[in-house]
Amino acid sequence: MLPEWVFDADDRSFMAAAIAEAEAAAARGEVPVGAVVTLGGEIVARSGNRRQEQSDPAAHAEIIALREAGRVVGDWRLSNCTLYVTLEPCPMCAATCREARLQLVIWGAEDERAGAFGSVIDLAADPRLGPPLAHRGGLEEDRCRELLLRFFAKQRQSS
Amino acid sequence: MLPEWVFDADDRSFMAAAIAEAEAAAARGEVPVGAVVTLGGEIVARSGNRRQEQSDPAAHAEIIALREAGRVVGDWRLSNCTLYVTLEPCPMCAATCREARLQLVIWGAEDERAGAFGSVIDLAADPRLGPPLAHRGGLEEDRCRELLLRFFAKQRQSS
Repeated sequence: MLPEWVFDADDRSFMAAAIAEAEAAAARGEVPVGAVVTLGGEIVARSGNRRQEQSDPAAHAEIIALREAGRVVGDWRLSNCTLYVTLEPCPMCAATCREARLQLVIWGAEDERAGAFGSVIDLAADPRLGPPLAHRGGLEEDRCRELLLRFFAKQRQSS
Repeated sequence: MLPEWVFDADDRSFMAAAIAEAEAAAARGEVPVGAVVTLGGEIVARSGNRRQEQSDPAAHAEIIALREAGRVVGDWRLSNCTLYVTLEPCPMCAATCREARLQLVIWGAEDERAGAFGSVIDLAADPRLGPPLAHRGGLEEDRCRELLLRFFAKQRQSS
């Protein structure tokens, strides 16, 4: 986790777009996580979590956004792209970030239950998987975590 | 890796279907890996690798087949399903198998470069990720490996 001042105005603006995707996911009844992929300072793909809606085990926000970015760029190798995501990626998404050869991942809140960028396991730095994947956590951490806490509190109330 | 006699006639027939998907992938110029998902003794989804064709970093055979199985079953939780795949899954696919709550994964050849069921890392047994994911490797190992060796030998010739 890095202090907020590490990030610049562009980072904040892209994370705001990811947060908007997370909010839209919550409105659809999905666990509120959102992601955007940027290339050359522009957003090329964005998505919220759609796992329930699509009955798709791989429909986390990151993977939908990375798949869309591949289509836009015309290459599954997204070596010049950055992913912004509101929550520390799970092992599936962390490994997909590696597969996509992303330049950088910037994430919001820690996931102490399933985070794969250091919280539970570290698939970014594990030397057996090759060179480390660059990532920075903690951008808009409080807002990203609050969205999740509010969603799960509401779920508990209605169950 | 288990001896061949561990597997039964159904296992062999489902792996043959996965191998057919791998062969079709090779014919499309994709790294020849194939997968099928079964439920109650029937194939509910099948795919070969389509990463180049779809410019999709997540378009490994396993993930396409698991996404399709989710749509068919109407649930991203595939707790009663088995995945057959010709190659030991990579970290992305191994973690997706966990996310899908698969009952069992049966795989063909070891992947010494990227295998995540024990060859390079072990995402099936890592206790930090929860209860272990059941899997058995080595079914039709020689055929599965040969397909890959032939594909890469041909690629080297033409480059």
